[in-house]
Amino acid sequence: MADRKGLGVTPQGEDFSAWYNELVLKAELADRAPVKGAMIIRPYGYRIWELLQAELDQRFKATGHVNAYFPLFIPMSYLAKEAAHVEGFSPELAVVTHAGGEELEEPLVVRPTSETVIGETYSRWISSWRDLPLLINQWANVVRWELRPRLFLRTTEFLWQEGHTAHADEDDAMAETMRMLGVYTEVARDVAAIPVVPGEKTPGERFAGAVATFSIEAMMRDGRALQSGTSHYLGTNFAQAFDITFQDASGVLRHCHTTSWGMSTRMIGAVIMAHGDDKGLVLPPRLAPYQVVVVPIGKDPEVDQAAARLADDARAAGVRAHVDTRDATPGFKFNDWELKGVPLRIELGPRDLAAGTAVVAARLGSGKETVPLEGLVAGLPARLDACHDALLARATDFRDSRRARVDTWDEFKTRVADGWADALHCGQPACEDVIKADTGATPRCIPSDGPAESGQCIRCDAPSAWGRRVLFAKAY
Amino acid sequence: MADRKGLGVTPQGEDFSAWYNELVLKAELADRAPVKGAMIIRPYGYRIWELLQAELDQRFKATGHVNAYFPLFIPMSYLAKEAAHVEGFSPELAVVTHAGGEELEEPLVVRPTSETVIGETYSRWISSWRDLPLLINQWANVVRWELRPRLFLRTTEFLWQEGHTAHADEDDAMAETMRMLGVYTEVARDVAAIPVVPGEKTPGERFAGAVATFSIEAMMRDGRALQSGTSHYLGTNFAQAFDITFQDASGVLRHCHTTSWGMSTRMIGAVIMAHGDDKGLVLPPRLAPYQVVVVPIGKDPEVDQAAARLADDARAAGVRAHVDTRDATPGFKFNDWELKGVPLRIELGPRDLAAGTAVVAARLGSGKETVPLEGLVAGLPARLDACHDALLARATDFRDSRRARVDTWDEFKTRVADGWADALHCGQPACEDVIKADTGATPRCIPSDGPAESGQCIRCDAPSAWGRRVLFAKAY
Repeated sequence: MADRKGLGVTPQGEDFSAWYNELVLKAELADRAPVKGAMIIRPYGYRIWELLQAELDQRFKATGHVNAYFPLFIPMSYLAKEAAHVEGFSPELAVVTHAGGEELEEPLVVRPTSETVIGETYSRWISSWRDLPLLINQWANVVRWELRPRLFLRTTEFLWQEGHTAHADEDDAMAETMRMLGVYTEVARDVAAIPVVPGEKTPGERFAGAVATFSIEAMMRDGRALQSGTSHYLGTNFAQAFDITFQDASGVLRHCHTTSWGMSTRMIGAVIMAHGDDKGLVLPPRLAPYQVVVVPIGKDPEVDQAAARLADDARAAGVRAHVDTRDATPGFKFNDWELKGVPLRIELGPRDLAAGTAVVAARLGSGKETVPLEGLVAGLPARLDACHDALLARATDFRDSRRARVDTWDEFKTRVADGWADALHCGQPACEDVIKADTGATPRCIPSDGPAESGQCIRCDAPSAWGRRVLFAKAY
Repeated sequence: MADRKGLGVTPQGEDFSAWYNELVLKAELADRAPVKGAMIIRPYGYRIWELLQAELDQRFKATGHVNAYFPLFIPMSYLAKEAAHVEGFSPELAVVTHAGGEELEEPLVVRPTSETVIGETYSRWISSWRDLPLLINQWANVVRWELRPRLFLRTTEFLWQEGHTAHADEDDAMAETMRMLGVYTEVARDVAAIPVVPGEKTPGERFAGAVATFSIEAMMRDGRALQSGTSHYLGTNFAQAFDITFQDASGVLRHCHTTSWGMSTRMIGAVIMAHGDDKGLVLPPRLAPYQVVVVPIGKDPEVDQAAARLADDARAAGVRAHVDTRDATPGFKFNDWELKGVPLRIELGPRDLAAGTAVVAARLGSGKETVPLEGLVAGLPARLDACHDALLARATDFRDSRRARVDTWDEFKTRVADGWADALHCGQPACEDVIKADTGATPRCIPSDGPAESGQCIRCDAPSAWGRRVLFAKAY
């Protein structure tokens, strides 16, 4: 492969952005595509996505959703039906004007999101209260033209899931919105080992067309926030634009209340930046393509056989295990698998084998441990769980050490330079703009678990809004 | 839902095409989209696709492939690099000319297939013989502008997988081409219960840019053939166009030999038309969203509980089971699940429950069977296997009854009117054209298992080509 040589990456402390860009390429997660801003997801990166998909999909199904597939191309006129929606997305659209050798009568938009085409469809599928709730998800690619693209974080095309549901009333739709925010919070914590903060967006950060937008915010190791999943209560905005109505039990025609929610390949960027270090990726075990890599030491057929057997046994025990049989030095292999973030490495040499032991090294941890071969495989799932817990604890400690409740503007500026500030805010968009211009920080969300509190705005001294503190940070 | 009333469909014998179009809509497999020729895959149809995906994906991984994702948009200039390829695909392209509010410098093609963008990528990823073989698959949507669209069979956008592999030499690439044709044959037979005929395409039916194209051909219940999967040996055509080279072990720079292979949502059309009857779908159990539907008879809480328990137990035993608790008559439910092709129906009423029995009805079969509740669930997997075997046997008998070796032009014409003809052919494209003009039949493939044979062309009396008979049929 082109860049197999030179496994080192720029240290985070020197240039976090260079660290990220180099790591994505050198760990073979993704590659640049011929069209600017697009991305090739390489097998190692795509496997992370597959594992995340499986975790999400199983939770979507367990909460009553089914998958479907809606078209990539949307008539331009559809977008115009919801005024805020078209205004928000127009600058990012890719447009098909010719097809089958002819100019199209109406240009087609490549979907940036699917509320419009799904809204039109739901208006045909829903007629009675018996049809509700309608709970559908789709796995798809979407296109949003990006001026400052970055692999995984902002690419012109990305992969995601988008849930679209229709309900009889606001209560049911809001419950769905919060349920799926909860699913995202759980997957971030229990699968990606990222302790995200869920909360509502302020109006300036709302999805174009939503009544309320909620997000989960993750802290990266440079202290910035990364929005990692969103859940929107759309009210009757799209139902009115697309005439999604139903007859209630008493025969009255009503508009549905709809929701939408999505998580994307951006989450892979979150995993890279929430956990990675100067040696490379640190993958949470539940998303690691290989959870365990066995490195045979020395050229010894018996060792090779034992290594293969160990990996076979591990796979039979449900562990994603791999034997590195490449013609390279152990040192090269250790560095390579550290770069690739494999949670556990098992070294097996002739002396280990003779002693009935192996050496186990955790990617996140100090030093190596000599472990009896007997019982090693049986203990792997518990070791991997311990890796997950240690990673989540480290990320939580890091986040808490960089996050503070601040009550003065000086504290605020210091805090958001490399972390998160919980502050009271007046809720005025103009004041948010001033804060952004001064510090680069924006309101990430109004954390759901924040205690009731009020007082003066951190910036303009006007009375605070929202009844709670707002989380501010510089964001990706 | 819009068309829940009126479950009947036009009989196949009256109008097969109307039967198909009505059934796809009434069984809620798919719906028409706002853009002509596009398709909405509804949850019931998408679940079939998910099950097929899982079966294929597991076999791809077992044969050493990994998944990745390549971009939707391809620079127009890429397609032009392989002359036959651009000629073949040009009439079907959708083109993005504007994005981000501006006209693009170079128009972008929405991928009709990905040989070009993947070829360019492989040229960067491959440098040494150690990088070979490179075995990658992607799950993606593709766009081919269709003038005569039909749901699942020919839609402007469809879902598929496309495998793209690179090898050191022809032998290895041909072995891959045939291995994947074998995977498709196996999945068609063992999963979809369709006894396909694998074979090589004649040059006129080759993929644009391939050296050799192989397909699996399935017989529909009107006697027509449906190409259900293809595997291409691309020689060094794309390697030369995109400079995919490697240094062999002796240091010599060589072109790779590449392959590509794909199966798409078209396979759902094959399942519908290979098995369906005048009552609706007949789904092969391994692709059925619900393998068993339990219909409680009468409004009896005890029956409802027993039905729920039965379905729970079945699910615990790995069977996809569903209880129909809708407020509708048993007769309506029976018709509905027959329309939807569910392999097994279990009826449970108060009298059955008192007697410790249930009534089991197979979708494909005659009459009902009274079965003790004790042991019913444990026996479901074997019953479903029997459904699969019966379906495959029926499809095989049907195919064999409509397929014949023919040696005269009159026989040929009679046979291809509603079936398949194995005939000797001269191999001349002009002669193929005459046959098509006269009968509507085209060469589907040169069956791989055909015995060596030669003689005179069925149509023009010139000496036969290929050393074997060619399978002719009218095709979708």
